[in-house]
Amino acid sequence: MIEGCARHGIRGISPWRDQVAQMGLKEAVKSINSHGLTVTGLCRGGFFTAKNWRDDNRRAIEEAHALGAQCLVLVVGGLAEGSKDLISSRERAREGIATILPEARKAVGVAVDVYHVWWDPKLEQQIRRAGKRILAYHICDWLVPTRDLLNDRGMMGDGVIDLPRIRGWVEGAGYSGFHEVEIFSELDWWQRDPDEVLRVCKERYERCT
Amino acid sequence: MIEGCARHGIRGISPWRDQVAQMGLKEAVKSINSHGLTVTGLCRGGFFTAKNWRDDNRRAIEEAHALGAQCLVLVVGGLAEGSKDLISSRERAREGIATILPEARKAVGVAVDVYHVWWDPKLEQQIRRAGKRILAYHICDWLVPTRDLLNDRGMMGDGVIDLPRIRGWVEGAGYSGFHEVEIFSELDWWQRDPDEVLRVCKERYERCT
Repeated sequence: MIEGCARHGIRGISPWRDQVAQMGLKEAVKSINSHGLTVTGLCRGGFFTAKNWRDDNRRAIEEAHALGAQCLVLVVGGLAEGSKDLISSRERAREGIATILPEARKAVGVAVDVYHVWWDPKLEQQIRRAGKRILAYHICDWLVPTRDLLNDRGMMGDGVIDLPRIRGWVEGAGYSGFHEVEIFSELDWWQRDPDEVLRVCKERYERCT
Repeated sequence: MIEGCARHGIRGISPWRDQVAQMGLKEAVKSINSHGLTVTGLCRGGFFTAKNWRDDNRRAIEEAHALGAQCLVLVVGGLAEGSKDLISSRERAREGIATILPEARKAVGVAVDVYHVWWDPKLEQQIRRAGKRILAYHICDWLVPTRDLLNDRGMMGDGVIDLPRIRGWVEGAGYSGFHEVEIFSELDWWQRDPDEVLRVCKERYERCT
């Protein structure tokens, strides 16, 4: 994938920790550097409902530093097993971030992932509010119908998200970083030749976003 | 179903228009009245993206009056075919409601359907704001994992919605009407004996809501 990005003129990458581990951290750093890619982010820390969340986030921060990642993307975790208490669940996320923040030696910011926020009537206003704290912009599309709640994200242009509009808001808020394509697609894109996927990503990025 | 509700001591019903049409409006009115059921609502008007929305909503309002329904539940429709413009889509819903309202000879109100709102960080505040305008309270549960985005609603108690908490908010806002069980469940409850479904609904309503 690293080599593929470089070959297609994609100048950044946001690796997942399991894939970095599989490759070996040192080897990943070496390969990414030698291909001249920017590490836009490391996916994913957070998961504050897991038992070992402190140690795991500590390791994630170290890996992010080793990779020279511009940020560590947090997925904070949802309801604890057996719980229905959303309020304390949100509180746990806040506390978790506060706990690991000193070790990160970075500020907390916002990743705008269109898949999660495209429908929000207050999206424009919230993007403006986030302003300079926007650290990442993740794009894909929302398919109609969506066949799987987690892994049926669409390629830009294949769904109903008004990507140019949201891009305008994000850039208007002062964000000038990379646009990261993130398409969980068990039923389609993950089954295709990675080289074709990268080619379509580039083409759609230019035409549909 | 009318007879089943009466037999299980369920004192209200919110019929769907297609089922009323199948039975015949007069016959439905007669049967519901003879079993002493309150018509808590008629499902569903709205769909302002459809070509014939004016006439269809006019008919829905007439049917609701004929049934003595306490309200007509509107599903306002989403994006128009081929459109990605959420803002004008919301505007269309507002205009559609404003257009049909004079014919309804009723006020606009809010149906609190837990399936749509359970996750909202501002739910308590918004329920308080809706106050006396709450006309219906729809309950079911959110299953984890959800296998279908539309028709995999859960029976109360089988998912992660904190139903007693939301009920407290709704009652605290002054709502004292019926609690309507609405479970779209292609994969489970629609396959079971309707008599069993009604029995479980009652039991779960008393134990889990």
